[in-house]
Amino acid sequence: MNVRTPDPNPGWLSSEDLYEARRRLPMVYVEALPVRLDPLGYVSEIGLLYQATDSGQMMRTFVSGRVHYRETIRAALVRHIEKDLGPMAMPQLPPSPVPFTVAEYFPSPSETGLTDDRQHAVSLAYIIPMRGECSPRQDALELTWLTPEEALSPTVQEEFAGGRGNLVRQALAHMGWYH
Amino acid sequence: MNVRTPDPNPGWLSSEDLYEARRRLPMVYVEALPVRLDPLGYVSEIGLLYQATDSGQMMRTFVSGRVHYRETIRAALVRHIEKDLGPMAMPQLPPSPVPFTVAEYFPSPSETGLTDDRQHAVSLAYIIPMRGECSPRQDALELTWLTPEEALSPTVQEEFAGGRGNLVRQALAHMGWYH
Amino acid sequence: MNVRTPDPNPGWLSSEDLYEARRRLPMVYVEALPVRLDPLGYVSEIGLLYQATDSGQMMRTFVSGRVHYRETIRAALVRHIEKDLGPMAMPQLPPSPVPFTVAEYFPSPSETGLTDDRQHAVSLAYIIPMRGECSPRQDALELTWLTPEEALSPTVQEEFAGGRGNLVRQALAHMGWYH
Amino acid sequence: MNVRTPDPNPGWLSSEDLYEARRRLPMVYVEALPVRLDPLGYVSEIGLLYQATDSGQMMRTFVSGRVHYRETIRAALVRHIEKDLGPMAMPQLPPSPVPFTVAEYFPSPSETGLTDDRQHAVSLAYIIPMRGECSPRQDALELTWLTPEEALSPTVQEEFAGGRGNLVRQALAHMGWYH
Repeated sequence: MNVRTPDPNPGWLSSEDLYEARRRLPMVYVEALPVRLDPLGYVSEIGLLYQATDSGQMMRTFVSGRVHYRETIRAALVRHIEKDLGPMAMPQLPPSPVPFTVAEYFPSPSETGLTDDRQHAVSLAYIIPMRGECSPRQDALELTWLTPEEALSPTVQEEFAGGRGNLVRQALAHMGWYH
Repeated sequence: MNVRTPDPNPGWLSSEDLYEARRRLPMVYVEALPVRLDPLGYVSEIGLLYQATDSGQMMRTFVSGRVHYRETIRAALVRHIEKDLGPMAMPQLPPSPVPFTVAEYFPSPSETGLTDDRQHAVSLAYIIPMRGECSPRQDALELTWLTPEEALSPTVQEEFAGGRGNLVRQALAHMGWYH
Repeated sequence: MNVRTPDPNPGWLSSEDLYEARRRLPMVYVEALPVRLDPLGYVSEIGLLYQATDSGQMMRTFVSGRVHYRETIRAALVRHIEKDLGPMAMPQLPPSPVPFTVAEYFPSPSETGLTDDRQHAVSLAYIIPMRGECSPRQDALELTWLTPEEALSPTVQEEFAGGRGNLVRQALAHMGWYH
Repeated sequence: MNVRTPDPNPGWLSSEDLYEARRRLPMVYVEALPVRLDPLGYVSEIGLLYQATDSGQMMRTFVSGRVHYRETIRAALVRHIEKDLGPMAMPQLPPSPVPFTVAEYFPSPSETGLTDDRQHAVSLAYIIPMRGECSPRQDALELTWLTPEEALSPTVQEEFAGGRGNLVRQALAHMGWYH
């Protein structure tokens, strides 16, 4: 149980209701790609979570999660970053609310190439420079900082599920990274 | 009844369930600001809907609506544009899925300045050039094409509800419009 | 000689002066990546020029060129598109002046990975949907429409000079294209 | 004389040659709008320079300047920020090279609404969060931090020359600021 971010909105769905809603409504998500920048702003590293799936397989993933009822996108980003990377990460939220891409996950294959067994999620994806120390707080999580070259390597790309590896490519392209 | 866009997803919520969900989950919306461009791409006109509220007041609004379960953002945009502007509008959907802004509507006042009595909506807002003829198909709707100056005039700005007038300002700023 | 777009600015540099300026000032460029979109706005094809270099080698390139003194970016885009793709291309210039990326070409290798022997060029790169018929007007040019997969294939990527192949990757990433 | 940023490129133009080039070629500029963000990334203040013109009038302006030959945009941004705001400003350069707008200044009135007596400048404009202490280093300069409301007030807007006040509006719109 997460004791640090108590539910500020008692109007939320129960687990059962959320399960039902997920089968009938698109969910609003935010996704954060943590990066380290050099003094000129060029990306030097990208932070990827490494997480065990239910079947015990290790997969790469992003800081990610649902936007709650009555929660702003910025508050959801800060909440999920703190949950996954700890309270000392010091994320620099961008001045603009425009995401670098909108990722649409569907329960079955679609035009978007992105899948999520559990739901249809519309995910606003942001590149977030981190100034502090990132320390994953949950036992199942590991954070690894990779260079852009490493993050794009076939080995790492194969460790993503549901087409998420493409988001790394999109993020690096958005940052003007050349390879 | 809309006979042209039959429901492709029978898993949708009933009216009652949708009413409940709206009180507990953020809804995913798309918003379209129709524009006319001159041959160089400069905006010449912006299309605003004029619609009677339940209390009989006439208000300005945008082409707007919910994204359905298992529907892509692009399909939702095309569906709502056709519903509000007719089948001959010939919208030019942009090559990128990135909106010009993300508008967050809350049932009560918040940081975002945008309100919607019915729900918490996260709305992806797009500028959509129209090449064809726009003819609102629903009796309650009227479409007016305004110059940027007219759309920003205090008279017109006062005809928006819930802070939506600001989206016109953001759209025109995004297009580099000078005044 | 191009008789269709006579010089509206007699204050331009002579060839000699331009040669000198190119060794001392960054040049302002525009670059256009022509695309074909399906009715929902998803990219189906990307148009690449195929051009012989001075040494006779065939190279892929983009619609590209200098912004003249007192010329707007939009006017320069239209001028170069017409010069390279003919008068019936019917380009749809975007409503926003913001490029999908800014490409910095240097006469020698640099952080940006982009090179141009002739000059330091700061190039504003735009994705431009084409609605008409594109027919290259200059003998040395050929236009080929490639699918995103083809444009990203190693064979095609190797036919770009100066790192330009990366711009194709950046453009497709910006359009949310998944592979 | 600026002893801190010595000329790394001896190939630059002399004053006379630069004067000539400015009458015949567009110049590449960068412009920085310094901002203070709250912990969630919402803009709280925008930094404007206050500078005496040749005729002694006080005008608002931005951190701004030319991109040198063989200089990257990021290096030019850092150089001009340090020159105008001092070495302790701690600017956070954005991960993406894409500006929030491209401002085109012409020596005479044009579609863009922006003028600059001296030249035709194509200016890439960036919003730059500042984490440190900004202290203008040149005698003629003063820096004032204004709230978004103050920066948009008619009094302040009238203190901009050449249409630059509109860039403040565009920047605030890009940041999703509501008024």
